Amino acid sequence: MAQLFLALDFGGTKHTAAVAARGERRWRAHRRVFCPPEADAGYDIETMCTMARDLLAGARPAALGVSFGGPVDFASGTVRLSHHVPGWENIPLRQMLETEFGAPASVDNDANVAALGENRFGAGQGCDSMMYITVSTGVGGGWILNGQPWRGTEGMAGEIGHTVVDPDGPICLCGKRGCVERLASGPYIAQQARAWLVEQPDRGKMLRALAGGNLEAITGKLVAQAATQGDDLAWEALRVGAWALGVGIGNAANLMNPQRFVLGGGVTKAGDRWWQVVTLIAHETALPEVRFDVVPAALGDDAPLWGAVALAEDCFQNS
Amino acid sequence: MAQLFLALDFGGTKHTAAVAARGERRWRAHRRVFCPPEADAGYDIETMCTMARDLLAGARPAALGVSFGGPVDFASGTVRLSHHVPGWENIPLRQMLETEFGAPASVDNDANVAALGENRFGAGQGCDSMMYITVSTGVGGGWILNGQPWRGTEGMAGEIGHTVVDPDGPICLCGKRGCVERLASGPYIAQQARAWLVEQPDRGKMLRALAGGNLEAITGKLVAQAATQGDDLAWEALRVGAWALGVGIGNAANLMNPQRFVLGGGVTKAGDRWWQVVTLIAHETALPEVRFDVVPAALGDDAPLWGAVALAEDCFQNS
Repeated sequence: MAQLFLALDFGGTKHTAAVAARGERRWRAHRRVFCPPEADAGYDIETMCTMARDLLAGARPAALGVSFGGPVDFASGTVRLSHHVPGWENIPLRQMLETEFGAPASVDNDANVAALGENRFGAGQGCDSMMYITVSTGVGGGWILNGQPWRGTEGMAGEIGHTVVDPDGPICLCGKRGCVERLASGPYIAQQARAWLVEQPDRGKMLRALAGGNLEAITGKLVAQAATQGDDLAWEALRVGAWALGVGIGNAANLMNPQRFVLGGGVTKAGDRWWQVVTLIAHETALPEVRFDVVPAALGDDAPLWGAVALAEDCFQNS
Repeated sequence: MAQLFLALDFGGTKHTAAVAARGERRWRAHRRVFCPPEADAGYDIETMCTMARDLLAGARPAALGVSFGGPVDFASGTVRLSHHVPGWENIPLRQMLETEFGAPASVDNDANVAALGENRFGAGQGCDSMMYITVSTGVGGGWILNGQPWRGTEGMAGEIGHTVVDPDGPICLCGKRGCVERLASGPYIAQQARAWLVEQPDRGKMLRALAGGNLEAITGKLVAQAATQGDDLAWEALRVGAWALGVGIGNAANLMNPQRFVLGGGVTKAGDRWWQVVTLIAHETALPEVRFDVVPAALGDDAPLWGAVALAEDCFQNS
């Protein structure tokens, strides 16, 4: 009988459980649920365990891999907290799941797990060193060095979103000016476009039309759409974000000299012009001898889940 | 009889050879020479080999470690080039030294070797992850991750000097604006102070006096001296450099989450105020959860040489 790996992805707004057999590259079973706004840690864990038991249909998994959308102490498998859901403070998730499913488990934060997923099964295959960057409501990242996740001394590595690229730029939620996230994330691109629409009533006609005249309805996606249609103001907001991300990537390349940067998340669907600026600025920022490529992620929303399979594989090998 | 390690440091302006016995933390023999301006690679190698043979006095070393002031392909032990001395293009230095001394050798660039030296014997002892940064005529760095040098996919990691921290800043030799090196290195601090002295004839009295009225005589060291004496203009030039280095360190901390940054090189002798600004800005730039310390290097000019001993040790263990 095939050995089964159970992959769990605790996201901010949805949870996914899936089962893959060792050596296979397709899901044997897969289920996703949206979390109600009143969810807490207990609810999340119970929901996930119920889904997982259903998918396993009585089979015992060989190992579990878990992606969690928040800071995790990898060594102990303890969730430190969630920025979205209450009750996750210092939850020994690995231990709870090992007891529940009678198999070894490995738990890490979503950026590290997605990096591992893309490295093992996606756009980073064959790369000994790479950085995965998600550009979405936030900007986060995870490193693979020597084929393994580099988590940093306290699991905080990969925070490219809070590297400063413009010290005179706008203030980020973190308190600093000109972080990559403050310029390149979807909500901030939308905020920038809205601010310019208010200041410059004669510009951004297409974007205004797409939003039905309601500035509050503007999202990063709508800005990208307007930019594709030729709206200058929308493109300018998008371009600033692409520039900031490019500088961040170039700086990271100068520091670490990895082979590849793999970019995922909603903002990376903003179109060819966005990709061109990111890539150009990244290479201009890096020294000429510092070579790398910048490619789109291949696994989409399933990157953390496939990363969880990779965690389970490693966990099984080492158990 | 004690096993001897031969440590060689090919610098831009001087060469050092030294001998240490396995397990000892002092030099059995040590010699340094300045290179004449007309030196080329052949001259450098011959000079170094002659010094080394003298120091060894007929003994055969157990292994050699070599620090080279320029890009090196570590895997093959080949020097790619020197930015200071002609004739170093693609010189198989490791192979030449192994033949010459009949022992295994290991060759790496000076930033990586100094990082290893500080990690094994200096201010980074006990750190599993750290970055060594030299702030001198240039700004360079080397990483230690998992207790080993991280060189990057093509040996280019550690280029913190060419990370951008102020995209509106002055233009660096590398062509970009606002690199750390362009703001924080000794010659550029001096250049900034000179420019301000020309623009602002009423300021910088102490600095002008120290330079004997000759602006061309101003060096980074003189700027630091004037700043210590209370010269505002000098302190401003120094403070900009400290700020830039602090942002660069904070960004590197967010990306890699190492335990420690070890700073060496002439500019780090600029005084307490310089250190305070570097440390403050580094911690302000890093997220609050990203903890690290910033400490002065302990080995001074001998960091690459002790790093070469560490290289020789590892080379001996693995041979």
